[in-house]
Amino acid sequence: MSGLYYGVAYYDEYIREARLDKDIEMMLAAGINVVRIAESTWSTLEPSEGQYNFHHIDRVLDAMHHAGIAVIIGTPTYAIPHWLAKQNPDILVTTPNGHEIYGRRQIIDIMNPYFLTYAENIIRVLLEHVCHHPAIIGYQVDNETKHYENVGEVIQTAFKRSLKKRFPDIRQLNDAFGLEYWSNRIDCWDDFPPVEGTINASLGCAFARFRREKVADYLAWQAAIVTEYAQPSQFVTQNFDFEWRGWSFGLQPRVDHFAAAQAMSVASVDVYHPTQDHLTGREIAFSGDVARNLKGGKNYFVMETQAQGFAKWTPYPGQLRLQAFSHIASGASMVSYWHWHSIHNSYETYWKGLLSHDFAPGPTYQEAVTIGTDMARLSGTLNELRVENDVAILVSNNAMEAMNWFRPDTPQPELNNHGHYIYNDILRRFWDALYDRNVGVDIINGIDPKACKYRLIVIPALYSASNEELERINQYVENGGRVLIGFKSGFCDEDVKVRTETQPGVISKCCGVSYSQFTIPENVGLKAETETVSCLPNESAEMWMELLSPASERTTVLLRYDHPHWGKYAAATISQYGRGQALYVGFLPSQEQIFSLFSSLATGLTLTSVTANCRWPVVVRHAVNKNGESIQFIFNYSAATETIALDADVHEPLSGDRLRKGDRVTIAAWGMRLFVKNV
Amino acid sequence: MSGLYYGVAYYDEYIREARLDKDIEMMLAAGINVVRIAESTWSTLEPSEGQYNFHHIDRVLDAMHHAGIAVIIGTPTYAIPHWLAKQNPDILVTTPNGHEIYGRRQIIDIMNPYFLTYAENIIRVLLEHVCHHPAIIGYQVDNETKHYENVGEVIQTAFKRSLKKRFPDIRQLNDAFGLEYWSNRIDCWDDFPPVEGTINASLGCAFARFRREKVADYLAWQAAIVTEYAQPSQFVTQNFDFEWRGWSFGLQPRVDHFAAAQAMSVASVDVYHPTQDHLTGREIAFSGDVARNLKGGKNYFVMETQAQGFAKWTPYPGQLRLQAFSHIASGASMVSYWHWHSIHNSYETYWKGLLSHDFAPGPTYQEAVTIGTDMARLSGTLNELRVENDVAILVSNNAMEAMNWFRPDTPQPELNNHGHYIYNDILRRFWDALYDRNVGVDIINGIDPKACKYRLIVIPALYSASNEELERINQYVENGGRVLIGFKSGFCDEDVKVRTETQPGVISKCCGVSYSQFTIPENVGLKAETETVSCLPNESAEMWMELLSPASERTTVLLRYDHPHWGKYAAATISQYGRGQALYVGFLPSQEQIFSLFSSLATGLTLTSVTANCRWPVVVRHAVNKNGESIQFIFNYSAATETIALDADVHEPLSGDRLRKGDRVTIAAWGMRLFVKNV
Amino acid sequence: MSGLYYGVAYYDEYIREARLDKDIEMMLAAGINVVRIAESTWSTLEPSEGQYNFHHIDRVLDAMHHAGIAVIIGTPTYAIPHWLAKQNPDILVTTPNGHEIYGRRQIIDIMNPYFLTYAENIIRVLLEHVCHHPAIIGYQVDNETKHYENVGEVIQTAFKRSLKKRFPDIRQLNDAFGLEYWSNRIDCWDDFPPVEGTINASLGCAFARFRREKVADYLAWQAAIVTEYAQPSQFVTQNFDFEWRGWSFGLQPRVDHFAAAQAMSVASVDVYHPTQDHLTGREIAFSGDVARNLKGGKNYFVMETQAQGFAKWTPYPGQLRLQAFSHIASGASMVSYWHWHSIHNSYETYWKGLLSHDFAPGPTYQEAVTIGTDMARLSGTLNELRVENDVAILVSNNAMEAMNWFRPDTPQPELNNHGHYIYNDILRRFWDALYDRNVGVDIINGIDPKACKYRLIVIPALYSASNEELERINQYVENGGRVLIGFKSGFCDEDVKVRTETQPGVISKCCGVSYSQFTIPENVGLKAETETVSCLPNESAEMWMELLSPASERTTVLLRYDHPHWGKYAAATISQYGRGQALYVGFLPSQEQIFSLFSSLATGLTLTSVTANCRWPVVVRHAVNKNGESIQFIFNYSAATETIALDADVHEPLSGDRLRKGDRVTIAAWGMRLFVKNV
Repeated sequence: MSGLYYGVAYYDEYIREARLDKDIEMMLAAGINVVRIAESTWSTLEPSEGQYNFHHIDRVLDAMHHAGIAVIIGTPTYAIPHWLAKQNPDILVTTPNGHEIYGRRQIIDIMNPYFLTYAENIIRVLLEHVCHHPAIIGYQVDNETKHYENVGEVIQTAFKRSLKKRFPDIRQLNDAFGLEYWSNRIDCWDDFPPVEGTINASLGCAFARFRREKVADYLAWQAAIVTEYAQPSQFVTQNFDFEWRGWSFGLQPRVDHFAAAQAMSVASVDVYHPTQDHLTGREIAFSGDVARNLKGGKNYFVMETQAQGFAKWTPYPGQLRLQAFSHIASGASMVSYWHWHSIHNSYETYWKGLLSHDFAPGPTYQEAVTIGTDMARLSGTLNELRVENDVAILVSNNAMEAMNWFRPDTPQPELNNHGHYIYNDILRRFWDALYDRNVGVDIINGIDPKACKYRLIVIPALYSASNEELERINQYVENGGRVLIGFKSGFCDEDVKVRTETQPGVISKCCGVSYSQFTIPENVGLKAETETVSCLPNESAEMWMELLSPASERTTVLLRYDHPHWGKYAAATISQYGRGQALYVGFLPSQEQIFSLFSSLATGLTLTSVTANCRWPVVVRHAVNKNGESIQFIFNYSAATETIALDADVHEPLSGDRLRKGDRVTIAAWGMRLFVKNV
Repeated sequence: MSGLYYGVAYYDEYIREARLDKDIEMMLAAGINVVRIAESTWSTLEPSEGQYNFHHIDRVLDAMHHAGIAVIIGTPTYAIPHWLAKQNPDILVTTPNGHEIYGRRQIIDIMNPYFLTYAENIIRVLLEHVCHHPAIIGYQVDNETKHYENVGEVIQTAFKRSLKKRFPDIRQLNDAFGLEYWSNRIDCWDDFPPVEGTINASLGCAFARFRREKVADYLAWQAAIVTEYAQPSQFVTQNFDFEWRGWSFGLQPRVDHFAAAQAMSVASVDVYHPTQDHLTGREIAFSGDVARNLKGGKNYFVMETQAQGFAKWTPYPGQLRLQAFSHIASGASMVSYWHWHSIHNSYETYWKGLLSHDFAPGPTYQEAVTIGTDMARLSGTLNELRVENDVAILVSNNAMEAMNWFRPDTPQPELNNHGHYIYNDILRRFWDALYDRNVGVDIINGIDPKACKYRLIVIPALYSASNEELERINQYVENGGRVLIGFKSGFCDEDVKVRTETQPGVISKCCGVSYSQFTIPENVGLKAETETVSCLPNESAEMWMELLSPASERTTVLLRYDHPHWGKYAAATISQYGRGQALYVGFLPSQEQIFSLFSSLATGLTLTSVTANCRWPVVVRHAVNKNGESIQFIFNYSAATETIALDADVHEPLSGDRLRKGDRVTIAAWGMRLFVKNV
Repeated sequence: MSGLYYGVAYYDEYIREARLDKDIEMMLAAGINVVRIAESTWSTLEPSEGQYNFHHIDRVLDAMHHAGIAVIIGTPTYAIPHWLAKQNPDILVTTPNGHEIYGRRQIIDIMNPYFLTYAENIIRVLLEHVCHHPAIIGYQVDNETKHYENVGEVIQTAFKRSLKKRFPDIRQLNDAFGLEYWSNRIDCWDDFPPVEGTINASLGCAFARFRREKVADYLAWQAAIVTEYAQPSQFVTQNFDFEWRGWSFGLQPRVDHFAAAQAMSVASVDVYHPTQDHLTGREIAFSGDVARNLKGGKNYFVMETQAQGFAKWTPYPGQLRLQAFSHIASGASMVSYWHWHSIHNSYETYWKGLLSHDFAPGPTYQEAVTIGTDMARLSGTLNELRVENDVAILVSNNAMEAMNWFRPDTPQPELNNHGHYIYNDILRRFWDALYDRNVGVDIINGIDPKACKYRLIVIPALYSASNEELERINQYVENGGRVLIGFKSGFCDEDVKVRTETQPGVISKCCGVSYSQFTIPENVGLKAETETVSCLPNESAEMWMELLSPASERTTVLLRYDHPHWGKYAAATISQYGRGQALYVGFLPSQEQIFSLFSSLATGLTLTSVTANCRWPVVVRHAVNKNGESIQFIFNYSAATETIALDADVHEPLSGDRLRKGDRVTIAAWGMRLFVKNV
């Protein structure tokens, strides 16, 4: 594939009227060059067992091909027909709340053998039917796949088997997980307890990890089937979503995107976010920083994002355009809307598409016309954009899960807590601090200390990690890397057993700091101990505080707590280790404080990730295109006109203007400008 | 029946002491002339299957008759004995939360054939025993009957059958309800899904409507049985309640009162409301405006209302009296308390009666004595009062249910949401605005454009309605009517399918307005565009806002949004259509704004519904008695003395005074005065 | 036993490393002289049915004995192994939320015969193995035992049987419980309804009482088994906990501590509470005031209290010491920490012990060293301390349960409400008012009017009580006692039937007051009617208000409500009765107001309970040791240094200083001083 894709999800199945020709005409006018179809339409494709109906698929494929619009085929598996659930009720997933009732999508036991048999059949039948159609550019397997809180018998048995394999002697299991506590010890595998009732975080987190693995296995299984039919030029992808807090918020706890992406040829994500006065670009850039790194920096697809979205997200004029180019600046090569027109019945009636329910060319559609036109004009300029960063943030699904068992904000663990993942609050605090100050980052899930392209890595709350993972941090620093490590990192091993060494355990080596106590800060201020960090008068420790002491001569205290009883303890320290430096921070800092610590750690480095001196709402992003040209995007996430001085001689492809370094350019409210740097 | 009834619910069954004679003596002293008995006493009447005990019924009937107190017999069916539930556990209703456990009242599957058999038996046995007793003036069937969230097999099967009848070809069902979405399409009726899990609002609302119909059927079935035994002079009624928010708040979502009242000879309601500093009269008048219109303007019964009520409702001196006459001014011909004395055990111990637990003549009883005395004195004056309005509010159970699937305040629908009905918030905003400004209204559930006595109809949030219903609005306006139509009206058809025409669909004809976008207002002000409406400086759009544009030359913009991005859109418009006018408002206005729009629409009309220029807490109500005399009630819902000038020459039956137009009369704190206009 | 015990809970089972010798060395250094073991380790002791493993028990017993550290053996029954639950799933308790899933502790049906069989077996096997070991000083049976919301078949059948015995004629049951209401009447015992669904508070409270009795029976059953093995010198105890609101808050609703303590030779409690700026000493003293009176004033054990506790409770320097001596001043002869070291896996990872996870001698351990050292030095001085009070607070489990069915803060009762017990809010308001003003109290559960050592008894919210209980109050007053009775007292009989006499029923005799109405105060102030009570300008009635009238010539109104409508009613009265006085208060007063009423009632008495004129944060406690010496503790619960003048000539054992009456002594922040009064 090449160039930029501008797309929509399209469901001929939902439409009663003869709309197809009119729709395609309007798509072409808006520069729409790709549609995704078939996903979630199983009951239409196979209205009863073994009876198939390709009416809608065929006519859409033909019409799109005729119009020159590419098609992505989604496998229809994530929403099942009722006849299937009725025949085999066990296909519906069992969660801690009981056995699911038919109705919603995504209520399947993805390990159920009957489900897999029927799913494989409909995938094969569909692909056999369509796979030679020239309109198709690729396939999406399933959609936003997760484990759906599965605690069914099949997955519990498989989980037990996996532990048996890992711990041939059951005493190893008791040891690793500390099962003696509250009489949970078991002496034979037959006595293995139901996982949904466990109060043992080691067991709970192992099961959560196993469930994430099963999601990746399921997606790889679908991808393998699809690959049997796909042409070499066609991609296979999955549409990943993020922790949902009414919008795309953080790392997804129920899938390991990095693992699941391995079976895909390209990564896709769906991204939803507030707009109007709350449009910040943060969710767009955050999801891009993940997606871009799932396939080693390759361009990714925004397979779904909002057009009009929820009623409260009806975009202001300009915002749809700002959003589209923000995705591209993050490395997306496709921006595709959920969905073409607003749906007239059922659950997502108010999840509005590019067209309103009246199919008329309304304001949002009209803005899409300008976007599609410009994307077509710029497709050479923006082809295969590469985003290069030398700053990264290290994330971990295991740490996220373990943190949620032991949330700082609740004194006792919540069993089977599938709510709000506090890890993401912490991650986002660090990430936001950098985004808002125009520091671009990659989001990565591991460090190769021998071949690490990053000069500085931020590591928030790496609460559960193996010795090996932590030693790689030490080695990275020893080799000259710089790390900013957040509180609670290194506390537990990979089985969520607290280390018995002095905390923060293995990484004490690079950090040169130790603590044996921690508490929840209440009216605890901060004091700067060196001139290299600043500390605002009203800064205070949030969420958690470790009572740190330097444990090495190489360690300098940067911040201390300002408190009658805790004042003798350090709050943040920096330490030389090998050729690098490790900054450790024992509390949740404000964004401002994070940036101050980051700047202190970055002293002496010239980072390409730092794209501008200004701050959000002006966001500056850099990328390099296929031709090696350096592209600069300037986004204005505010309702006021903003001005910025150029840092190089540039030309502006859309206007044709040439400007010089130091020239002040204005960016309209909710506007964007795009420059190509002169060589 | 004639005259005014002043009553209590009475349970000889609950009392351990020999109280009957003493109670009757106290009742007579308080002017109590009717008691309701038997309701909810099944386990006492039939202590084990087929064994009957009429001890309490007989002695109460005889004693009351002897004292000249009339008796209403309630069928005992809404609370079942445990022996019945134990024998046939399926009698207990299955809800989305599971199968009910015995204990509470109103936990029955009212479609269960065993329940119906036993219920019919106890009704027949009871009525056969009592029906010739001269004390009886009428019957109440069941009590506050609703569907109790029934999702049992019987009702689901019946529902499927009703759909099969309506949609002989199953494809019509798929089409009408949009079942293709999320793979919910079905190809044969055997695959019909469980309703409790559905995410399809069309299906969910159809089921809700079916359940309301089954409640009406059940009540009609009981009424038919009772009618076999009743004398022609005896009434058959049901005691309807309202949406409960800790008090009687709005239209009842789980019964269609208008449909269910057809089988009754008189309408009864129960009305509970805050008192003390929170007594406003609103709940009394609102429930009256519904009840009065259930049987075409005939007087209704307040079968239950509070005496002392909840602890926080212990009335201030004067309030019980103010409440009683407020009911009468709304058209009630009975005011009956729940209940005579406070109960010493079980659930309603703190739901206090006219007497406290000590049976002593306490302050509330003593106030009842004054009420009963005055009601007796005034019974000629207040006999068969007619309340005549030329302003109405149109309500809809279907619109209410559909609105709750797609509440403006939540971005995604809640499945099986049986909580707070947001429709009632909107309805009450409009209703309150008129009540508080002394505009009397009828609450109606349909318009007959050919024979409509109303000169102005307010139509809030008629979200789901058939083309026919909406065309009747157009015709009513064409014929000279005036309508004030609120946002979201006309959006969906009767199957909750969004219309594909430009919104607001069918009623665009009379309204002359269109929109394709809407959003949730945040800091959105309003600007008046004409002098006919006023707009307070701090007015803002609430809850929802449609981005309106005039769609006809007949349309005048009344209000625009005050906002940097939405300022070009209209917020309220008025349009001439035929001989009438239609005012459309695209957001939830404040009460003040509603009244300003109402006044603008009413320009040139002299409305009999407008009873006074003053505002709440002074409430003025008009009625005409059997003799054609015009009665004026003036109520003071405040702790301060209020003064008002009379608008006619009157006499005051209770004092015997004669006063002249223009005389200023004072109304004491929490007081009332009643005048008869001189002819 | 003699002297003071300083202890920890110790689990060799949880530790992977060879820590035992090192742990004992550190214990000895900290003056630890007792450990509790075995409790909750069933799965380690009996890893599969009938296979036993005493490895950890034996080595700990031997090592402790060798070191001179005493051992308490806990029976392991409150946390069961999974093999047992798997074999007999009914062992897991059924609650209103369903059948428990294995995982947590305390999820057992303690009436299940299989459970009892296996529990008896493991107790006997364990005790047979250890009972001759010289290290053992006593046994703890089970732990924090409660009924775990049991609604299983076994307990319901037993409950029905108990009612059948109490009410040989079922009509008596219907009468006593008012079952006619809502058709709950039953005619034969076979029709007895499921208790979990009942809406009848009489039935609900009777079941709650029955469940408390079954807990006491179960504990007595375990105690009897243990006693078969125990030496006469060894104690048998249970570790009672309190209503848990994130910390030990009030009387325990799910056990009757007074009844359950009868089978024990010594009472033990666990006490957890906030620290840092929220350390007040209240929970320590409150739990002590209960525990001390469970075995007639004998010293009690604090079997569990926090060392570091929850993260937010990490103690400030000095606080651990302040806490330990506060327990001793309340009459504790043991202070034992949960637990020795912080646990590395599972639920209580963040419930930190005396050592952190690194086993290092951290700050909290180091403070324990000072405590242990001083306790050893003072063990003669503090041996068998007696705390003598002449003021008591009367509490009632029955009143607590009944109050929660009819909470003043909710208009309708909540079925099976196992939440927050509002009785404890009221109790704690009264108790706190006295504690904070240095009035020591005993918490008692009954009055013997003939042999009552208390001169003044405070009786909050004795909502449900038999005539006999209430008559004992009348007699106590008649005999010269003084009582301060709070609102709602005397309202219901022991079956939660409201009395039909004028309220407050039986105790009207001593109180000389009556009321028939009550309400929830809203903006209701208070006015003092005599000079003997003070009334702050901003005092207002809270939670509840009874509209009181004096009903005797002996009655004086102390306070009236300040309100336009309720101003004529009294809010608090005092009445002479016999040789005593009864003060009745009809609302929930502020602490300040309670103390004013208390002082008014205490006029003329010199109370030994009043230990000082000063107020919290300075807390003064008195006790008498085995040698008859009078000990004075002065605690400073604040971050500021406090000063107080001595009220007698004293010497200070820790410093050796001698001081004189009137000397001002300073107490450091979070500090304490201990003086012995010179004879």
